[in-house]
Amino acid sequence: MKYVRFEQNDKEFYGVLDGEKIRILDRSYFEGGKETGETASCKDVKLLAPAVFSKALCIGLNYRDHAEEFKLPLPEKPVVFMKASTAILDPFGKIHYPKDMSEHLDYEGELTVVISRKCRSVSVEEAADYILGYTIANDVTARDLQPKNGQWTVAKGFDTFCPVGPYIETEADPGNLELTTKVNGVVKQHSNTRNLIFPVPYLVSYLSHVMTLNAGDIILTGTPSGISRLESGDVVEISIEKLGTLVNTVD
Amino acid sequence: MKYVRFEQNDKEFYGVLDGEKIRILDRSYFEGGKETGETASCKDVKLLAPAVFSKALCIGLNYRDHAEEFKLPLPEKPVVFMKASTAILDPFGKIHYPKDMSEHLDYEGELTVVISRKCRSVSVEEAADYILGYTIANDVTARDLQPKNGQWTVAKGFDTFCPVGPYIETEADPGNLELTTKVNGVVKQHSNTRNLIFPVPYLVSYLSHVMTLNAGDIILTGTPSGISRLESGDVVEISIEKLGTLVNTVD
Repeated sequence: MKYVRFEQNDKEFYGVLDGEKIRILDRSYFEGGKETGETASCKDVKLLAPAVFSKALCIGLNYRDHAEEFKLPLPEKPVVFMKASTAILDPFGKIHYPKDMSEHLDYEGELTVVISRKCRSVSVEEAADYILGYTIANDVTARDLQPKNGQWTVAKGFDTFCPVGPYIETEADPGNLELTTKVNGVVKQHSNTRNLIFPVPYLVSYLSHVMTLNAGDIILTGTPSGISRLESGDVVEISIEKLGTLVNTVD
Repeated sequence: MKYVRFEQNDKEFYGVLDGEKIRILDRSYFEGGKETGETASCKDVKLLAPAVFSKALCIGLNYRDHAEEFKLPLPEKPVVFMKASTAILDPFGKIHYPKDMSEHLDYEGELTVVISRKCRSVSVEEAADYILGYTIANDVTARDLQPKNGQWTVAKGFDTFCPVGPYIETEADPGNLELTTKVNGVVKQHSNTRNLIFPVPYLVSYLSHVMTLNAGDIILTGTPSGISRLESGDVVEISIEKLGTLVNTVD
């Protein structure tokens, strides 16, 4: 099932994507929304970020190839940071380049876990019961503001630095999905989530032992090698097998 | 004016503290709540954290004395990190010691700014127009999980690691407030906010140039020297001139 959140005639809806059609739900999929029988056409709506999160927890250095790219030792525990909820951006939204503060913007394509319900101290085996599905996020980073030995909240927290979407796929194996990032049509990142150092069930379990995860919270699972700069006007496309393509332009 | 949020008979209210009495508002102070004419007595209510935030932005190493304590050079820009919104704890609430993951908990008493309304790219001079007032927070930290050169989200993000309160004082000069932290009655921290490296108006301006601040968001302005360990059963009292005392017990 592919869940979408969308806007039509200035109203917000939740629905199930079915080809070019959306079957509208009576409320959000986080609240057990049921189909109303009404439909909308994809071409008439504006897709919104499918999860509205209170927490976007992000994992640094979670692909073997990305850690090697930066010549960093593999972490023993997940490197965890947060993106501000105000950084959220709709699929097809414009990433704003904050030129007054940064001269170096990077994309980072990431498999993203969407939490379905309140989740606290669950085991690796139980983790799947708290996952609604998977989507794509771009962990946009002002690389020149990311001190090597400092906190990343500023570098990764600008408004529009967390594009999410286009939909939540409920049926996917998070341990075996191809990920490809293109900038202006040129392939820049290509990997498979089987290269994750800490796999998805482990991450959900680990994080839930630290803090309560709530419905709509997301976990960005880290980015593979091949990150590079974005310039104004660039088009970034992150595709993950079964999860579609997240497309954003840099403003 | 001293704003409080409180619970009485399982209902949540906002009010103005007036000695031992609370003058009840018709809605929250973030929404321009007006006095209803009804009152409640402090002894009959449970005080709640006066701000419910989507973002708790925290400043590391913002007192000259604390930076010296850790033998760290003074930062050129604020060191910014976030605490998860799920870490919020009411005044008088119990700090949970996560003994399965940490063996070293520290308190950090901090002057805390409460944002009144949406705030984006404001100047230092404009900052005061976006501040509702000031309160106290404890930036509880699992010190052994805080890697020197890593991200602090885990070490500082456990549930109950962000006690806030007891009220929001709208009339205070954030640049000249005495701060004292006691553990079991013994003074551990004593400083004045005039020792802040980056003062409050600068912090609001700087952060608002990175990300949109929303009503209820809080900024923990950093802790002075004198931090040390907490053990189960300890009582931490953080007092700031004009802002009262935040009291929490370790579970």
